[in-house]
Amino acid sequence: MTVLVLTSEQDVTADMVVAQLHELGVPLVRFDPGDLPGDVALSAEYVRGEFRGYLSTGGRVASVEAMRSVWIRRPGEAAAHAPEPSAWLTDESGHALYGMLDSTAARWMNHPSAAARARRKPWQMRLAHRSGFPVPATLVTTYPAMARKFAEQYRHVVVKSVSGKSPGDPPMALPTTLVPPDADFSGVAAAPTLLQRYIAKSADIRLTSVGCTHLAARKTAEAGQVDGRFGETGHTWEPVDVPAPVARAVERYKKEAELAYGAFDFAEDADGTWWFLECNQGGQFGFVELETGQPIARTVAEWLAAEPTA
Amino acid sequence: MTVLVLTSEQDVTADMVVAQLHELGVPLVRFDPGDLPGDVALSAEYVRGEFRGYLSTGGRVASVEAMRSVWIRRPGEAAAHAPEPSAWLTDESGHALYGMLDSTAARWMNHPSAAARARRKPWQMRLAHRSGFPVPATLVTTYPAMARKFAEQYRHVVVKSVSGKSPGDPPMALPTTLVPPDADFSGVAAAPTLLQRYIAKSADIRLTSVGCTHLAARKTAEAGQVDGRFGETGHTWEPVDVPAPVARAVERYKKEAELAYGAFDFAEDADGTWWFLECNQGGQFGFVELETGQPIARTVAEWLAAEPTA
Repeated sequence: MTVLVLTSEQDVTADMVVAQLHELGVPLVRFDPGDLPGDVALSAEYVRGEFRGYLSTGGRVASVEAMRSVWIRRPGEAAAHAPEPSAWLTDESGHALYGMLDSTAARWMNHPSAAARARRKPWQMRLAHRSGFPVPATLVTTYPAMARKFAEQYRHVVVKSVSGKSPGDPPMALPTTLVPPDADFSGVAAAPTLLQRYIAKSADIRLTSVGCTHLAARKTAEAGQVDGRFGETGHTWEPVDVPAPVARAVERYKKEAELAYGAFDFAEDADGTWWFLECNQGGQFGFVELETGQPIARTVAEWLAAEPTA
Repeated sequence: MTVLVLTSEQDVTADMVVAQLHELGVPLVRFDPGDLPGDVALSAEYVRGEFRGYLSTGGRVASVEAMRSVWIRRPGEAAAHAPEPSAWLTDESGHALYGMLDSTAARWMNHPSAAARARRKPWQMRLAHRSGFPVPATLVTTYPAMARKFAEQYRHVVVKSVSGKSPGDPPMALPTTLVPPDADFSGVAAAPTLLQRYIAKSADIRLTSVGCTHLAARKTAEAGQVDGRFGETGHTWEPVDVPAPVARAVERYKKEAELAYGAFDFAEDADGTWWFLECNQGGQFGFVELETGQPIARTVAEWLAAEPTA
């Protein structure tokens, strides 16, 4: 039984997990879907409702039926490295690869369909609420007047990306930004804008959930600090216990979202409440593991290596 | 309660359904997501787990909570008509629109997540088999030798698109094509190729399934004809009864695929068996309605207009 790791060549987080899989002695195949077709080849025949076949790369061949699990760690787009790349070839290659894998019993961390859905901020907020997390008031609008009214009502609001992506090519790192109530909101008409009530926080919380294991870390925030993920704050990430109601909400959220992995960001307020900010289904964990010593890569590797439950 | 029709300006099939909705006296809002932001505006505030807000276009305003149903009929990409279009603006606008609609109780024909998944040919074949349809043997491969072996084994095979799309920009209409066993298969290494056993057919069958209504049409095939969808064959589409086992398989397929609408293509062989070729979740129906007189547009309109079941 083989673990399949789909990732781009240069990913450090992937390297951490692959090292752990080697330690566990689990056979694995790692490649970038950008190399299909080319360095990666596949062949699968549909026989009575199942695809039987194999994937081949770098002289290794893995049977499709023997896939234990698939780890999606920021893979390239299918056929990205083809001699004559095209949107059509990317579609054909992606459908061939993922369609073939979809017809196996392999467990996914995370399945591409679940991952795509889980990126939507409005969807996240609704699910977070239903899962039992406190969620700050939020507005999505193209009306400058509605944006201004929301900012006046809550006084302290932040602006965020609706899609969870950053603008620009290459993307700009876009820290969450505090917006004063007297800001010029006329630009709202040019792009749907997400405004959220700002939570005055005593700490940032990052909870990394891998299967049934939830590892949380806490980083003290300076007064008035908005986004602690960027820049030097003089504080480091330290392990923190996960309150039982939070663990239950995380489990409800991941079950409904069909996610095996999620990186949850919370703002801890002065009362110690953890406010849901977002769940990044493909979130980095290297920086937390390095500062806290929490064995996240090991936990991911163990999840991928686990025998299927019958 | 309002019906929302998301479509591009020029779609004739959309016009047919909109005319029926007008006849039924159902309030509706129709726009192209390409006009958001711009001619289309939206605003939604997240309050205790639900989005409350409205969509506005052409002087009409519809409350988001009062959406009865959403019909997706080949809509443009969000923000496609913005003064400065970008992939980022498309993402932001699409997530705002669909994320907001996702948090309502509206019924979808079809939901974008289900639609995206339902396009994958390998996924379709596996589900078709499990639903009870006969499915021809199929190969997806990048190995020229495997393609040659498959063609030699079945003698008559056809080549199809894996993703269900056509190559080129603008797309070429790509009829399904018979491949001789002695063909040059070397090009298979350059793009994953889908080969399927050719079913010698006496007729093409198009079954249009709308909710619980299944309307089938039959078009006699000439001996050796491969794809009856293109060109003049001297035969026209005529209504045909749906065999009970086919109706049950259609219902299982659509339930599992979470589709409210599907256009199923079958090949009828000399024994009268309907072989599953594909299910197009966004398939045209205008040409069948015009030749057969089957009330497909009316059935779609009635499904969209139905009161939600509590």
